[in-house]
Amino acid sequence: MVKVGIIGATGYTGVELLRLLLRHSDVTVQVVTSRTEVGRRLDALFPTLRGHTELVFTDPDSTELMGCDLVFFATPHNVAMRSVPRLLEAGVRVIDLSADYRLQDSKVWSQWYGEDHVSPDLCAGAVYGLPEVNRAAIADASLVACPGCYPTAVQLGFLPLLKAGVVELQSLIASCASGVSGAGRQGKIPSLLTEASESFRAYGVMGHRHLPEIEQGLTQMADTPVQLTFVPHLAPMNRGILATLFAQLKEDAGDCQALFESTYANEPFVDVLPEGEQPDTRYVRGNNRCQLSVTVPQGRRTVVVTAAIDNLTKGASGQAVQAMNIMLGLPELRGLELISVTP
Amino acid sequence: MVKVGIIGATGYTGVELLRLLLRHSDVTVQVVTSRTEVGRRLDALFPTLRGHTELVFTDPDSTELMGCDLVFFATPHNVAMRSVPRLLEAGVRVIDLSADYRLQDSKVWSQWYGEDHVSPDLCAGAVYGLPEVNRAAIADASLVACPGCYPTAVQLGFLPLLKAGVVELQSLIASCASGVSGAGRQGKIPSLLTEASESFRAYGVMGHRHLPEIEQGLTQMADTPVQLTFVPHLAPMNRGILATLFAQLKEDAGDCQALFESTYANEPFVDVLPEGEQPDTRYVRGNNRCQLSVTVPQGRRTVVVTAAIDNLTKGASGQAVQAMNIMLGLPELRGLELISVTP
Amino acid sequence: MVKVGIIGATGYTGVELLRLLLRHSDVTVQVVTSRTEVGRRLDALFPTLRGHTELVFTDPDSTELMGCDLVFFATPHNVAMRSVPRLLEAGVRVIDLSADYRLQDSKVWSQWYGEDHVSPDLCAGAVYGLPEVNRAAIADASLVACPGCYPTAVQLGFLPLLKAGVVELQSLIASCASGVSGAGRQGKIPSLLTEASESFRAYGVMGHRHLPEIEQGLTQMADTPVQLTFVPHLAPMNRGILATLFAQLKEDAGDCQALFESTYANEPFVDVLPEGEQPDTRYVRGNNRCQLSVTVPQGRRTVVVTAAIDNLTKGASGQAVQAMNIMLGLPELRGLELISVTP
Amino acid sequence: MVKVGIIGATGYTGVELLRLLLRHSDVTVQVVTSRTEVGRRLDALFPTLRGHTELVFTDPDSTELMGCDLVFFATPHNVAMRSVPRLLEAGVRVIDLSADYRLQDSKVWSQWYGEDHVSPDLCAGAVYGLPEVNRAAIADASLVACPGCYPTAVQLGFLPLLKAGVVELQSLIASCASGVSGAGRQGKIPSLLTEASESFRAYGVMGHRHLPEIEQGLTQMADTPVQLTFVPHLAPMNRGILATLFAQLKEDAGDCQALFESTYANEPFVDVLPEGEQPDTRYVRGNNRCQLSVTVPQGRRTVVVTAAIDNLTKGASGQAVQAMNIMLGLPELRGLELISVTP
Repeated sequence: MVKVGIIGATGYTGVELLRLLLRHSDVTVQVVTSRTEVGRRLDALFPTLRGHTELVFTDPDSTELMGCDLVFFATPHNVAMRSVPRLLEAGVRVIDLSADYRLQDSKVWSQWYGEDHVSPDLCAGAVYGLPEVNRAAIADASLVACPGCYPTAVQLGFLPLLKAGVVELQSLIASCASGVSGAGRQGKIPSLLTEASESFRAYGVMGHRHLPEIEQGLTQMADTPVQLTFVPHLAPMNRGILATLFAQLKEDAGDCQALFESTYANEPFVDVLPEGEQPDTRYVRGNNRCQLSVTVPQGRRTVVVTAAIDNLTKGASGQAVQAMNIMLGLPELRGLELISVTP
Repeated sequence: MVKVGIIGATGYTGVELLRLLLRHSDVTVQVVTSRTEVGRRLDALFPTLRGHTELVFTDPDSTELMGCDLVFFATPHNVAMRSVPRLLEAGVRVIDLSADYRLQDSKVWSQWYGEDHVSPDLCAGAVYGLPEVNRAAIADASLVACPGCYPTAVQLGFLPLLKAGVVELQSLIASCASGVSGAGRQGKIPSLLTEASESFRAYGVMGHRHLPEIEQGLTQMADTPVQLTFVPHLAPMNRGILATLFAQLKEDAGDCQALFESTYANEPFVDVLPEGEQPDTRYVRGNNRCQLSVTVPQGRRTVVVTAAIDNLTKGASGQAVQAMNIMLGLPELRGLELISVTP
Repeated sequence: MVKVGIIGATGYTGVELLRLLLRHSDVTVQVVTSRTEVGRRLDALFPTLRGHTELVFTDPDSTELMGCDLVFFATPHNVAMRSVPRLLEAGVRVIDLSADYRLQDSKVWSQWYGEDHVSPDLCAGAVYGLPEVNRAAIADASLVACPGCYPTAVQLGFLPLLKAGVVELQSLIASCASGVSGAGRQGKIPSLLTEASESFRAYGVMGHRHLPEIEQGLTQMADTPVQLTFVPHLAPMNRGILATLFAQLKEDAGDCQALFESTYANEPFVDVLPEGEQPDTRYVRGNNRCQLSVTVPQGRRTVVVTAAIDNLTKGASGQAVQAMNIMLGLPELRGLELISVTP
Repeated sequence: MVKVGIIGATGYTGVELLRLLLRHSDVTVQVVTSRTEVGRRLDALFPTLRGHTELVFTDPDSTELMGCDLVFFATPHNVAMRSVPRLLEAGVRVIDLSADYRLQDSKVWSQWYGEDHVSPDLCAGAVYGLPEVNRAAIADASLVACPGCYPTAVQLGFLPLLKAGVVELQSLIASCASGVSGAGRQGKIPSLLTEASESFRAYGVMGHRHLPEIEQGLTQMADTPVQLTFVPHLAPMNRGILATLFAQLKEDAGDCQALFESTYANEPFVDVLPEGEQPDTRYVRGNNRCQLSVTVPQGRRTVVVTAAIDNLTKGASGQAVQAMNIMLGLPELRGLELISVTP
């Protein structure tokens, strides 16, 4: 059994990681830390874990972490970059679910996060953990930066078009909606049921922190700088992201449906839907799949791609487990073959 | 007191009309018809009306309608086109909330609605009831075709840009989300709470019936044919539409915020938000306002407009009352000065 | 025009009061205070008020309050008891929506609220603002203590049975559910959409602060001490309370439906439903009504009463406006004749 | 591998059964029938099953069912009673999730379901499938009648008190709330999101079909006829039942917490919470657990029990799988050790 630790498991990506790892046949969750909950049982904070673990939160500074084979950071940004160097030196492999190592250029990171990066040297070497793009590099990585939720959906949706070079690169558009869990498990007024239900609104229109991450990824796919207009919205639901993507097709772009199907033919977690069907965040809830659909309305020049993921699963903790499986040489589906609860 | 009738008031636009008209100081609701509920009290079907009316549903073929000054159709498409001619001949003015007279070309109507139009001669003469575009014509109209919900939000959002001629016309994009009431008060499985909650999905991507209506309106504004890619989504809430619009700015497009503010300076129901603020469907619930915001992210070429309305108020029954006020020479705000319930 | 002030209008009862008072034909909202939002426009905090007011929050210590005819406290408990004496001395009438003066015995208050009462002398003289019980006293009151939300529903539901003396008094049961707005507009984790949606749970089972208030009222109705078991629940919705009440009928209890109908025959805001129909929180949303139904299942000994109110309207701000109307000699319905938005 | 069939898998209990059985290590789902969907792939109707099965709906009259070791009925009432005799004769064991065999007295069944029972002889011999009461009988049963959702929660909540004989039996009260999935996957107006969200109401107060089933079970536990007042409510959520139970304690009733803990000490799916904690439907979503809490508020005579289950899991399909495990001699937890998704 592989020994894993989780740093900062008091939020939604933390409890999602626990849901997946506590039932994973090849790993043991050895240590779970939280600065604020030291000594408290995990299942006292998260009653859904009753009967599944007797673990107690320990201090993040405890040395137990050093005894793990692999450690996950399920922390807000700005935490991992302080502790990762020490773990790597001790030979512990790291999967960081936060934003700290997603941007290869630490100066860009500083611009968007408003502070200096503490371990900038690691940024360029961290492997961006999107298996559909970086599978081989993930297998050998000591530090994996898990993609953000919006970036996962947007990149998987644009990937076939950009790889095939069939769309204009300066007018890409992503109109996305996320459930409220994307805002984290914090007592903020806009996330109250009384503020977020019966509500639909855009936010971060002037510039959301996921924009540079997405443009970095799309640029690598296209091998040319791209420009994306990215508008996230808050939808009145717990989980799920739907990315609705628009691009201008070049002439002779060919059969988009066939392109998507062939691109993802061997991907275990990307499900290209039959023509005419649309993904729904509900269909992938608690599941590591990305459902995709591609349409060219009215046979015109604008292609529309829709991509649904669960922001906490394929958009965070599920993708982290997928990366872990790859790093450990396990089948990618291991521990992730769950069927979504419906309704 | 002006005498009004409502045909087909068993749906959500019907009960919304009743909510507004029963408290309107200048009209009396004289007759309300329903083929399926004849003889039943309105407040037995809609308990929110208890204490506000003692009316009973009557047969749509009753002659009482002829005694009205003005009649509203709150029916599905395909009903008004059969009865409107008779009412107009009798000198009754008509506001049709359905789709029957929204398209000036009855052949285009037939294409999208899959049947022949029964009174095609009236199509070209019906006044499209968007007051911000057609106020003068509405005042004199005998037949007003109330705009659809999505078309209201999308047209109000694009109007300043198209009138000013500052955007490219062949790559307009509207990514919209609507609450479930847009699907009507009918027992359909996809509208069940168990299917539509915790869900976000696109629909009608290949071609939604509101597309030709929107393109007709935008083309008139631009005085040139436009091409719109329109993707509606179903959001897990009762009411509200948010239209997120994208267009490519021409060079020297100028100050969009100032353009929007001046365009709508005198419109009582269009509220251009201060720079940096975003509309929310929650802020206009049960209200006849359209809230607008305009942004040019990263100072690039793509302009983003967001427009929020209540699909049943400004998107249907409120707009119908606004049109009625104009037709009757009343202040436009009359009966529509309600404050949204929050939360 | 009567000049009114509102102290502490940054919460949900505050904005609900504003919704009602800004459209009330006989009052002017003169001053609105908030310690944390001084200088900010009300409509910046509450965008639903855009176009309806240009007021700015002022400091609660400002002397403007002394120029009002009547002042509302829409504050958490513990605030009004400090400021009310000064206002009363200045001849300003007060309606307190908080819990500070609801219990006539300040010692009981101290027990349940865990602190000394600062103006205990006023407790016994404050008029409990339930018009259906205390209408005459409210008319003359200088200080009205607005009932809590649960207490309003539970007392209106039990009142006919207790007044008629037809039920056992030691085994009364109230199983109630409230929307999340009952928890206030504060950034608390249990009120997040991600915690409170798709959830139904009891709370405060060992003893909720509304218990002594309800028992005080029921005891006065019955003229004998009563014992109530009160279990509140949190329901995944914004607004509304449903109280489901159980009592053991004495023999020869008579016709409960007739009893309810006659008891409330002249009450403008109590709506006894026809036999067999059930109230719904949805039917009274944003409305000052209490809907009631009474049933004796299987013709056995247990009577079931269901009472629906909007916790922020009849359960707080609407009831406060109703009390104000009575105090000012206005028709009770003034400003409260709104029709609930549906759906 | 044990071969199982499912009859009528187009509803919510059907897809829940499939979710559990398709991942169960000891069974193979051999045949799934639906009269309306013959020939359609299961995953076309339920996209959450994509990638997990290639099964196609077959006709319920097909002989394939006879080749199964065990068949589940996930049909509305009135279907199983027609087909079960034929299956039993063929040696196929049956678990009926519908109401057809829950009442031992077929005359009582006829009273509540308004029609004659077609196979009344089987009623008395069918085993009521509540493992916590009937484990041994289930192991040997050829026909198991799965308990209803409300009956499961109410019986598990009252069981310790009735077995111990510590409460009065003529004034038991159950105030319960259920998510909308309890109404099934049918296009009914009251189940629309637009009707059921932002709503809380009682229904079936005069007499719900689960009442005789519950009273039958409680009477067996108490070994004396009991009288229950049962009021179900519809809560605005997908899944979950919370039963809030009230009973009058006899004198010297003893320590209720200890009684509950000892009663359920060895039950794998009953989780008695620590004193002071309350169950939440959210904590058991998609899970086969029943969470229980017992309180004696104010130390008075009324005891309050709260019981949370998922109406589709422990209240239907999960309990059916639990019964199947018992019938097949498998560990009861097999296939049911899932952790609830949160949030």
